[in-house]
Amino acid sequence: MSVARAAVLAQFCQPLEIRTYPVPGEPEAGGALVRVEMAGICGTDVHLWLGQLSIPLPVILGHETVGRIERLGAGLAHDWRGTPLAPGDRVTWASSIVCGECYYCRVKRQPTRCVSRKAYGISYCADQPPHLRGGYADHILLRPGTAIFRLPDSLPTEAVVGAGCGLTTAIHGLERAPVIWGDVVVIQGAGPVGMAALALARHSGAAKIILIGGPKHRLDMALEFGADAVVSVDNEKDMLERRKLVLELTGSYGADVVVECVGHPSAVPEGMELCRDGGTFLVLGQYANAGDVPFNPHTITRKQLHVAGSWGFEPRHVDRAIRLLEGTAWKERFARQITHRFPLEQAGQALETMQQWRAGKTVLVP
Amino acid sequence: MSVARAAVLAQFCQPLEIRTYPVPGEPEAGGALVRVEMAGICGTDVHLWLGQLSIPLPVILGHETVGRIERLGAGLAHDWRGTPLAPGDRVTWASSIVCGECYYCRVKRQPTRCVSRKAYGISYCADQPPHLRGGYADHILLRPGTAIFRLPDSLPTEAVVGAGCGLTTAIHGLERAPVIWGDVVVIQGAGPVGMAALALARHSGAAKIILIGGPKHRLDMALEFGADAVVSVDNEKDMLERRKLVLELTGSYGADVVVECVGHPSAVPEGMELCRDGGTFLVLGQYANAGDVPFNPHTITRKQLHVAGSWGFEPRHVDRAIRLLEGTAWKERFARQITHRFPLEQAGQALETMQQWRAGKTVLVP
Amino acid sequence: MSVARAAVLAQFCQPLEIRTYPVPGEPEAGGALVRVEMAGICGTDVHLWLGQLSIPLPVILGHETVGRIERLGAGLAHDWRGTPLAPGDRVTWASSIVCGECYYCRVKRQPTRCVSRKAYGISYCADQPPHLRGGYADHILLRPGTAIFRLPDSLPTEAVVGAGCGLTTAIHGLERAPVIWGDVVVIQGAGPVGMAALALARHSGAAKIILIGGPKHRLDMALEFGADAVVSVDNEKDMLERRKLVLELTGSYGADVVVECVGHPSAVPEGMELCRDGGTFLVLGQYANAGDVPFNPHTITRKQLHVAGSWGFEPRHVDRAIRLLEGTAWKERFARQITHRFPLEQAGQALETMQQWRAGKTVLVP
Amino acid sequence: MSVARAAVLAQFCQPLEIRTYPVPGEPEAGGALVRVEMAGICGTDVHLWLGQLSIPLPVILGHETVGRIERLGAGLAHDWRGTPLAPGDRVTWASSIVCGECYYCRVKRQPTRCVSRKAYGISYCADQPPHLRGGYADHILLRPGTAIFRLPDSLPTEAVVGAGCGLTTAIHGLERAPVIWGDVVVIQGAGPVGMAALALARHSGAAKIILIGGPKHRLDMALEFGADAVVSVDNEKDMLERRKLVLELTGSYGADVVVECVGHPSAVPEGMELCRDGGTFLVLGQYANAGDVPFNPHTITRKQLHVAGSWGFEPRHVDRAIRLLEGTAWKERFARQITHRFPLEQAGQALETMQQWRAGKTVLVP
Repeated sequence: MSVARAAVLAQFCQPLEIRTYPVPGEPEAGGALVRVEMAGICGTDVHLWLGQLSIPLPVILGHETVGRIERLGAGLAHDWRGTPLAPGDRVTWASSIVCGECYYCRVKRQPTRCVSRKAYGISYCADQPPHLRGGYADHILLRPGTAIFRLPDSLPTEAVVGAGCGLTTAIHGLERAPVIWGDVVVIQGAGPVGMAALALARHSGAAKIILIGGPKHRLDMALEFGADAVVSVDNEKDMLERRKLVLELTGSYGADVVVECVGHPSAVPEGMELCRDGGTFLVLGQYANAGDVPFNPHTITRKQLHVAGSWGFEPRHVDRAIRLLEGTAWKERFARQITHRFPLEQAGQALETMQQWRAGKTVLVP
Repeated sequence: MSVARAAVLAQFCQPLEIRTYPVPGEPEAGGALVRVEMAGICGTDVHLWLGQLSIPLPVILGHETVGRIERLGAGLAHDWRGTPLAPGDRVTWASSIVCGECYYCRVKRQPTRCVSRKAYGISYCADQPPHLRGGYADHILLRPGTAIFRLPDSLPTEAVVGAGCGLTTAIHGLERAPVIWGDVVVIQGAGPVGMAALALARHSGAAKIILIGGPKHRLDMALEFGADAVVSVDNEKDMLERRKLVLELTGSYGADVVVECVGHPSAVPEGMELCRDGGTFLVLGQYANAGDVPFNPHTITRKQLHVAGSWGFEPRHVDRAIRLLEGTAWKERFARQITHRFPLEQAGQALETMQQWRAGKTVLVP
Repeated sequence: MSVARAAVLAQFCQPLEIRTYPVPGEPEAGGALVRVEMAGICGTDVHLWLGQLSIPLPVILGHETVGRIERLGAGLAHDWRGTPLAPGDRVTWASSIVCGECYYCRVKRQPTRCVSRKAYGISYCADQPPHLRGGYADHILLRPGTAIFRLPDSLPTEAVVGAGCGLTTAIHGLERAPVIWGDVVVIQGAGPVGMAALALARHSGAAKIILIGGPKHRLDMALEFGADAVVSVDNEKDMLERRKLVLELTGSYGADVVVECVGHPSAVPEGMELCRDGGTFLVLGQYANAGDVPFNPHTITRKQLHVAGSWGFEPRHVDRAIRLLEGTAWKERFARQITHRFPLEQAGQALETMQQWRAGKTVLVP
Repeated sequence: MSVARAAVLAQFCQPLEIRTYPVPGEPEAGGALVRVEMAGICGTDVHLWLGQLSIPLPVILGHETVGRIERLGAGLAHDWRGTPLAPGDRVTWASSIVCGECYYCRVKRQPTRCVSRKAYGISYCADQPPHLRGGYADHILLRPGTAIFRLPDSLPTEAVVGAGCGLTTAIHGLERAPVIWGDVVVIQGAGPVGMAALALARHSGAAKIILIGGPKHRLDMALEFGADAVVSVDNEKDMLERRKLVLELTGSYGADVVVECVGHPSAVPEGMELCRDGGTFLVLGQYANAGDVPFNPHTITRKQLHVAGSWGFEPRHVDRAIRLLEGTAWKERFARQITHRFPLEQAGQALETMQQWRAGKTVLVP
């Protein structure tokens, strides 16, 4: 029996450990054994590493992954779109699996809130067979029911991992709070979700996009992605000053749509103030529970805002992401986001690079 | 020249004063002189009286009014719906006038956010001619451009004033955050807006409506209005206890739609916790700026909520309100809300009755 | 091995035949054996009998069925809502099963257009094992993946079959073309779909509902269901005359929403003319391909209509139907629709009764 | 008193006549005297010339016009957006004026269906003072209430007239039937409305756009506008053949959104067949009543289509059109549509050029 190597988070805030796990000769029926080509380091991984979210330990991190199928389990013959699958195919997959049967899956059609949802790289204890349920590894075992997508040859692995779960998260979010052509848009945050939201707003015909964030190398990337203006949180440390700049750039009214992709609670009351009356505010970045913030709800009534939240994404958002990348020049832009590559052994260093905001996008190449 | 008597708010927190103003022989072109039959005491009037909102003084309060036309200004021949108008007609009117020309009126179609919006009983200094711009008076002078509605004979004055601006406010709000038949609904607040939201949810086919509020006489009225269950804030003083009750009543998930009609900032974070994931939260009651509340924005993202605000109402909402009252048994229920009637001289006493939550609906009969 | 008796359509336009089929001792894994308590005769069954739709023969008709579980296949322990299932439970089920994997199921979320959709009582050849896939029988075998609903004791079988697929069809249709409280609605057609659309429009707070149809006994039922006015197609044989009546009843403008539940192609151009400009027209009755009708598309542009079609229904619409019936007085009204009951042997007579429009709702009690 | 020259349609199908009309020294209050710089020849003008629409004669045609203000009537100081107006300013304007008071303007908010709507170049008899109500003239008199837009210097007159009412019509239409990023779109028709719909679909991020039309020079223009594929109606004369091509280009399913911009009734049943199930069909081109077409309504039900109509446009659509042109490279593309220029005296020749589809866009330069 062969073995696979994985970078394992065994203790919060400690260096990842390289461990080995047995690779079954035959994946379970409906599953697949995939050799990892590239695994993205997501900002969430840093939160997980620091113990800011509740997960089982040890865990093999990694939920943004591209690999090649090594072996297909019995009965698995097609990808999510119905395309035939064969060993050697390059694939990616939706990071979560839902039950399809609960109140949220069935009655209310909110599958991202499935009561049994589990995500690769997050929800699976690496001590339990079959162990290999995360992307920070040279091999991963996909469960039956995973939404697998065969990648077209024209679409580089770098584009898919460079876009990562930021793009699918933004696709879901902007489905709930759409940008219409001609809209004036503010993006709060220059991380992967913010960049993806910027790309989608641009692609949807926004008239003007203002991105608020930092550090400078990410604001430069935002300009490359098509932002009309950027506001540096390093230069404008005061919320009122940032608001003044945004109002000046929006004819004094504020934006039609504001997309929060920051994660700090304070970005939410700030973002509401950047909306025009009757505008839309998408709270897309508050993934971790970072506690309370003082907030004046009078703003929602008086400005008659529409505020939307969005959690994770569904397989159909991965489908849309791949189609977007495949069919447009966005694939090159997202691929260029990848500035740092590490081997599996340096996964911890990769996390630190990410944590310190030094990188565009950091990836593992196992 | 005849004179009109009005109850005037000259100083915040002080008793109203009865003053007299000249009545012009002829209203201005497009305007109308109306003899007041009944004027509602709105909860907002109490806030105004207490100086919690910024208004010019002195002011003749009163923005929920029914009267009879005494004289029509030149050129005013039809009401908002195109129905001919004549002296003697019983009418009500939209309390606000907008400019129809600004960015919010024209480009963004958010006329309730018109930059020049003025409301009877709120925005007009009684010292300035023609003085009579509020309902706490025996006569009122309507401006050109007022959306006047001739009332059908079958519709009692008590129903129109009993529903008051609570109904039109709720109509606007639920247009932005609709209740669909079969929805499970929570209403926070048992004041006039809450009762109107309850009526509309019932009328829209809600499957279950839970109203949270007090005091007891208003919860009894909520049951008469068709609430399936009421939760008393007097009995259940703890937000967590109220939440537990609501979850028990909603199969543990929370409501499809929660409508906040309370006004205290703390109702907003509480209300979000009463929504099911993917549900809708309408922030309808935060009319006054009552300051900050601690709030965890993670809730919006994780529960992927839709949150909506709504400010005031437009003439077309008054049109819908009148049609609803005229065509259904709701007219009797709203008329029965009126439990206290005062003459003009006792307008201050009427405000106190309202302030102390002793009444269903309090009105002036000048 | 026991046997089941079924009324079989072996040749179009010929009397149904009673045939017997073997009943397996054990249903397949995930499936169920159900003893039929009551099977509705749907208008579609008449079309099928007359050979107007393409189906395999022989077929056991019957897609509106309530029965009791006799035996559960391995692994089937809960209904669609997660309620435990046991032999003896009274159940109904969604008549169709979809693949969940095709372009329409997955990418476009139009599962009623699943390329592999199969319906009980329509799509299964009775010659092929396990034969028992229709409701006109004393037993039916449900496939794995069937959306089964355990019925609450408070909900009579007559209500569920009386509402039948007309209600679920109308629920889906009005989801795509909603009636909002205060709307003026025209329903074309007094069959089961029309009656269900009427019920839903009433339940959603429509201000006025006008039903056009016949014969007289069905118009009387429409009035019992809450129609404000009925227009008899027997008395008003001219489309222009019917239009004149509708315009008189709608202030000369036409209805906000018109719901076509007739099935004759000519109802579609007529229905468009009954909409106000900017109104909504739901084409809900054109299930059979009945050929072309002359039609002027200028009407759609000039009146800037919204026209919607809707095909079949999903399990969640059955869920909503059961909740509606269970929670309201509609269950009594729908149960009273059942005017004719026949034993299995008289299934052909039941079809004739339906064909001749003599009945409210006709059912088999095997 | 000076005089203005106009090209007048005095008899259907006859050459236009040059007539002169007096120019008032002072425009009426709220109105304006504008010297025409450029007037577009719209396809509707050809229909009007041929007597296919009911209009008063004689008429000065021309509803797509850019000019310079010569004199402002009393009280007219700002354009629709609130920008100050002065003689010499280059402006365009919405071609229609609505009453703002009728059932459609007020209650149902469908102002394009205003019962009193009047359009420059269409609805005004040139015999009646002040005569100058059409764009085929050296001067035009704008009525009070006209939605005037001051043009930014960066926006060439050619772009505004080149886009013409095709762009505003398409903006309104696609507001009612939106194209979302990633959609597969079919445009039927290569006239100005079709080209504008193509531009908007492209600008909104459509994944693939197929335009069906002709003649060849317009298909070439469609490719310049960004169509991914064109289907020539000259080469593919058979509807079934065109459908086959579209299905091949859309993975066999048809388009997410089909936009009819043809005007022949037969395009409507064809267009429905080009939609995928659950898709959207916008009937945007059926402006003239060109009679009936055989049509099978079963298609709407079975494919559960959304079909939308759209009539004319509102001032806010002109506002969006100008912003789009001003802010993007579309201004150059639309300006390049203008291939033929004629002086006022050759207005008839301009109409013939348009009628024979020889031109991109034809304009008058008076």
